[in-house]
Amino acid sequence: MHKVTPPLSGERFQVIYRMQGSHAEALAKAEDACIEQTVEFPADLLPAGDIPEQIIGRIEAVREAAADMHEITISYPVEDAGGDLVQLLNVIFGNTSIKPGVRVQKLILPPGLLNLFRGPRFGRAGLRALLGAPTRPMLCSAIKPMGLTSAQFAEQAYHFARGGIDIIKDDHGLANQPFAPFRERILRCVEAVQRANAETGHRTIYMPSLGARADQIFEKAHFAKESGAGGLLVPPGLVGFDTMRALADDDSLALLVMMHPALIGSYVTCPTTGFSHYALFGQITRLAGADATIYPNWGGRFAFSKEECISIVAGSQDEMGHIQPVFPTPGGGMTIDRIPEMLDVYGKDLIFLMGGGLHRIKPTLEESSAYFRNLVENM
Amino acid sequence: MHKVTPPLSGERFQVIYRMQGSHAEALAKAEDACIEQTVEFPADLLPAGDIPEQIIGRIEAVREAAADMHEITISYPVEDAGGDLVQLLNVIFGNTSIKPGVRVQKLILPPGLLNLFRGPRFGRAGLRALLGAPTRPMLCSAIKPMGLTSAQFAEQAYHFARGGIDIIKDDHGLANQPFAPFRERILRCVEAVQRANAETGHRTIYMPSLGARADQIFEKAHFAKESGAGGLLVPPGLVGFDTMRALADDDSLALLVMMHPALIGSYVTCPTTGFSHYALFGQITRLAGADATIYPNWGGRFAFSKEECISIVAGSQDEMGHIQPVFPTPGGGMTIDRIPEMLDVYGKDLIFLMGGGLHRIKPTLEESSAYFRNLVENM
Repeated sequence: MHKVTPPLSGERFQVIYRMQGSHAEALAKAEDACIEQTVEFPADLLPAGDIPEQIIGRIEAVREAAADMHEITISYPVEDAGGDLVQLLNVIFGNTSIKPGVRVQKLILPPGLLNLFRGPRFGRAGLRALLGAPTRPMLCSAIKPMGLTSAQFAEQAYHFARGGIDIIKDDHGLANQPFAPFRERILRCVEAVQRANAETGHRTIYMPSLGARADQIFEKAHFAKESGAGGLLVPPGLVGFDTMRALADDDSLALLVMMHPALIGSYVTCPTTGFSHYALFGQITRLAGADATIYPNWGGRFAFSKEECISIVAGSQDEMGHIQPVFPTPGGGMTIDRIPEMLDVYGKDLIFLMGGGLHRIKPTLEESSAYFRNLVENM
Repeated sequence: MHKVTPPLSGERFQVIYRMQGSHAEALAKAEDACIEQTVEFPADLLPAGDIPEQIIGRIEAVREAAADMHEITISYPVEDAGGDLVQLLNVIFGNTSIKPGVRVQKLILPPGLLNLFRGPRFGRAGLRALLGAPTRPMLCSAIKPMGLTSAQFAEQAYHFARGGIDIIKDDHGLANQPFAPFRERILRCVEAVQRANAETGHRTIYMPSLGARADQIFEKAHFAKESGAGGLLVPPGLVGFDTMRALADDDSLALLVMMHPALIGSYVTCPTTGFSHYALFGQITRLAGADATIYPNWGGRFAFSKEECISIVAGSQDEMGHIQPVFPTPGGGMTIDRIPEMLDVYGKDLIFLMGGGLHRIKPTLEESSAYFRNLVENM
């Protein structure tokens, strides 16, 4: 009888998968995942004892969720996740991502696993305190379009800040292009926002985009911090979820982190693979330390449904032990006329992200921003 | 007239997308992508001049590829990619990944872009030289199952090496679990493989899995190097494609890199989103510096078709300037009886990856490995 050393704690985490097919087909997929996600080894060749009894996945529940689709809960020992987010994601969906007809619907994580993660440093309460906005929705916009100079972006940032936008982020496509290099852009935009804050008394922050090389991203984050940036826009689809986690966890940075969904769309747009919006934009984003989760609002340029957006809100706030709730940040083609409807659905615990739409409201960006802020404050 | 500073080189790279829908629908998706992937800004508000004329994407070709599906080529200026892989991937598919019905089929990269990348350090020729295998297919296996101790894994590695397996990798699920912690496992497996090599004269290498925390992965890679590991197994879906690129580029490591597809499956399994097998397992994996690309062979535990596997081979070797061809490494349920068929299709330029299947052939792992090696050498 093979015993693992040291012995397992017995604590297990659960993953609820949606598996396509009849009861028998879905069950076969689940039995396969129990092995594929852990030992990747022929079941009949496993040494008797702890490995087949404890290390591999265990089917905990099966229920028919729709025609030809079953929700199957599989549990894994906490130890399989090896103490970090990278291996946790690997156990949840690594190899099974390559098989058709399986989607991760929800994670159920026990204290022994949640305790590995700090989660969002600020969360909803911390972010509200930082921005001095105890109850109202917050406002975010982006400097754009790519092709302008750093000076032009700084001027935009100044006007946004003057008008009362709370968070001014880089458009996620602004990286280190020659027309507005990363360091120059940050220095100028920080200066512009600080100047505006000194004039208005607002606490607007500038948040550069960290779609940066793996061997430079931490150094660039520290440059941003030292230059006075108030947060980091991080695209985990481009740089890795655990890179976002490491940036959020870094006490010498201690910066707000906002998740940008570049390149993770393929994980959610196909309903028979990937992750649910709830799991990816909610649970995993929180585990990975983001304080706000950007996603395309329904009815904009993208194709998320209203129900999917509402499920992201649930994922951003449902109980996960000590892991704080974070701010839904719907964007992707938002316009001023959507505000009442969005407040109806989301309530006030959100960050409105309006980019291009903010350039149409009034003759100047500052007037448009002020109009937007005033509208939101008085609803 | 807005002119960008410094002026653009005029060199553009191309992305061939598959866009679902009628000619008009696909064209609308393409026009949208030209904006979405670059300036993310209402076209009518762009300042006249370089931005609409050069910075945004440009539709270069449209052809009907199947019923209700068009292949549309869009070009972007090299400068949009900001000099690195992270932003290149962002321009290729960042936000458009969130829209349904668009898939990246192929990249066409000019010298000005390819020159940003070293590509695979070894490539096919370098890997053959390293392993002392000038013409034959090479053999890879994995230590498994999770739950064994480091000593047990080392014993497995010893027997694989004695039998003539060229590359012994960690099963990709071996991370830093308490039963076989990363550093201990590496030290023991390297020692076992070196001992076997001293006995046999083979040049077998041990390749640990680097599914590691973002703030530890480079340090762990250096530990592996200093301990005598011959390569690194890197899962870009878990740690980021550019992390793999940075590991491959590191001259103080100078280690072989093998790409493992954990968590990238969702990018290919759904035909209406993500990347083609050719682009993801071939082109992008090469840009990101891997010397070998692991994927599930057709007819195994996974669902790739024979055509998809053949397209990966094409992606692994088609001309990409100075970027070397790399080794297809089909695995995922391979057994000994598949060898003749696989040689027929792949020729000899491949790495056979057999995991669990190697445990069934002969009474001992060493005999099974020697049988496998002998079979491949004499075909």
